[in-house]
Amino acid sequence: MKQKIAVLGPGSWGTALAQVLVENGHETILWGKNPAQVKEINEQHTNHHYLPDLILPTELKATISLEEAIKDADALLFVIPTKAIREVAHQVAAIVENQPYIIHASKGLEQISHKRISEVLAEEIPEDKRKEIIVLSGPSHAEEVAVHDITTITAASPELDAATYVQELFMNEYFRIYTNDDVIGVELGAALKNIIALGAGAMVGLGFGDNAKAAIMTRGLAEISRLGVALGANPLTFIGLSGVGDLIVTCTSVHSRNWRTGQLLGQGKKLEEILNNMGMIVEGVSTTKAALELSKQLGVEMPITEAIHSVLYEGKDIKIAAKDIMLRDGRIENEFS
Amino acid sequence: MKQKIAVLGPGSWGTALAQVLVENGHETILWGKNPAQVKEINEQHTNHHYLPDLILPTELKATISLEEAIKDADALLFVIPTKAIREVAHQVAAIVENQPYIIHASKGLEQISHKRISEVLAEEIPEDKRKEIIVLSGPSHAEEVAVHDITTITAASPELDAATYVQELFMNEYFRIYTNDDVIGVELGAALKNIIALGAGAMVGLGFGDNAKAAIMTRGLAEISRLGVALGANPLTFIGLSGVGDLIVTCTSVHSRNWRTGQLLGQGKKLEEILNNMGMIVEGVSTTKAALELSKQLGVEMPITEAIHSVLYEGKDIKIAAKDIMLRDGRIENEFS
Repeated sequence: MKQKIAVLGPGSWGTALAQVLVENGHETILWGKNPAQVKEINEQHTNHHYLPDLILPTELKATISLEEAIKDADALLFVIPTKAIREVAHQVAAIVENQPYIIHASKGLEQISHKRISEVLAEEIPEDKRKEIIVLSGPSHAEEVAVHDITTITAASPELDAATYVQELFMNEYFRIYTNDDVIGVELGAALKNIIALGAGAMVGLGFGDNAKAAIMTRGLAEISRLGVALGANPLTFIGLSGVGDLIVTCTSVHSRNWRTGQLLGQGKKLEEILNNMGMIVEGVSTTKAALELSKQLGVEMPITEAIHSVLYEGKDIKIAAKDIMLRDGRIENEFS
Repeated sequence: MKQKIAVLGPGSWGTALAQVLVENGHETILWGKNPAQVKEINEQHTNHHYLPDLILPTELKATISLEEAIKDADALLFVIPTKAIREVAHQVAAIVENQPYIIHASKGLEQISHKRISEVLAEEIPEDKRKEIIVLSGPSHAEEVAVHDITTITAASPELDAATYVQELFMNEYFRIYTNDDVIGVELGAALKNIIALGAGAMVGLGFGDNAKAAIMTRGLAEISRLGVALGANPLTFIGLSGVGDLIVTCTSVHSRNWRTGQLLGQGKKLEEILNNMGMIVEGVSTTKAALELSKQLGVEMPITEAIHSVLYEGKDIKIAAKDIMLRDGRIENEFS
């Protein structure tokens, strides 16, 4: 059934998802704050800063008016950086009228509070103003979705019916959606995997090979799973698309800012210099801090996160940090609690 | 404590593991059937066919006499292709005297019987002629271990003490061992991941991108985990070094014969031609057949394995097989039983 969907956030991922929705026959409108970008989408049918080579469907509209975007929408799709989510959700709550589904495809944890994005959305948009909150996450470079390359992602909600609604919204012959009821696991996997991407990039930057990269990814996955379980996630979610799937795509691609930041750290560059040159947010840097604080509160051992934290925030030499991890005592593999 | 270890199988992995043992101070002898190769190891301290650039430690000895190799050994390490394991184990059983530990680092399932390697070893070497059987598995290119690159692997045995014995034997500052008591999961992960490597290689050969590769790896991992659980494995083992770790190293490296075979299939080459040119065993081809038979016996759904089987054995066009997988009904992600 044709739906009206407002996509909040015209970055590369928001734009690629909006294109999927248009192609599936839904009335789709992109909301963004930059008038020049909105004009470009409406008049040139391009979004050259984020998806340089793409011609967007003419049916895809954009607006700078949040009110216009969300009016009569059956669902709102938040694709907004973590640090701006609360503010936009607050604005939405003030004007939303017809109880839409709230979907989000953002990755990260809120700074200071360490809350998951669905928790932030639930706090800002009261239950009587919306239907369920659903998270969309998985291994998905926007550039590949934009050109109809095969992609699979997870739609998660405690209410499987709501996840199925999102599955039906997006699913087509190149975009395949799996449902999951473990929102905590899906959101934590998506956020915490950026820490491991930093670590895997660092191993490559330091000159280590495939074995070391696989080691950091696997043992990194074990420790983010341990933290996830302590926070209420199903450990099996970390074996899924939003966990290992996203980790693979992030750690085996040079497109990833987190991986690239790790690689440059491994090559001896300074964090400040890397972030300045990058000119974009590297979510893994703040997520490392959040994860370490959570691990201490909950008594979860996270040696890789600790090592990365010591490099990012305590000035530790990255070669020594890598070596120290190898020299720990022998461990049992399957300890998840 | 210094041990005497016989390494049966002087291929690249057997030789690299033997070098680790020598460096850790153990008396280590390699057994092989090829007199020229044994002579080369003893006199030139090289094994150029398998590890071209490596100079072996002079303490590493080799022999063509199985009797000499296993005499007084505290442990026997089998690193032999799956199809030859039973025969060598049978020969060992006839002459072994001092109840050694039996370690193996081979990957695959026995043809026709579909038995795991530790099952084959247990059948051929009776309990009164040996101590425990331990499996060694994880993400480990021999070439990288040979040059002391950081590597992590799993030692698994139902008796954790036996796994700890192997951990102590091998562990050093570049080679890190984790123990695990789930032998079934470790052996199945190691064998079945070759099927997924074929599939991931095929996606790349077909011209798909990182999203599609991550999709096949993740959903492939889900289906080999489902089969593993039906056969008695702990699903969490598949998130470990012998599961996802080995899968990552196999699917992100051009060294892997299975991955390379999939890539060539994706590019339109015929299986027979690929295998002839390769001149080496591609374990995933027979493992696909074994896994599909097991899945039918046990009623486990394995769509990716089925698709790969249809390409390898039923002449199905690989493009159509890839498309058919995408067009299945929507699924729930975390179904492991």
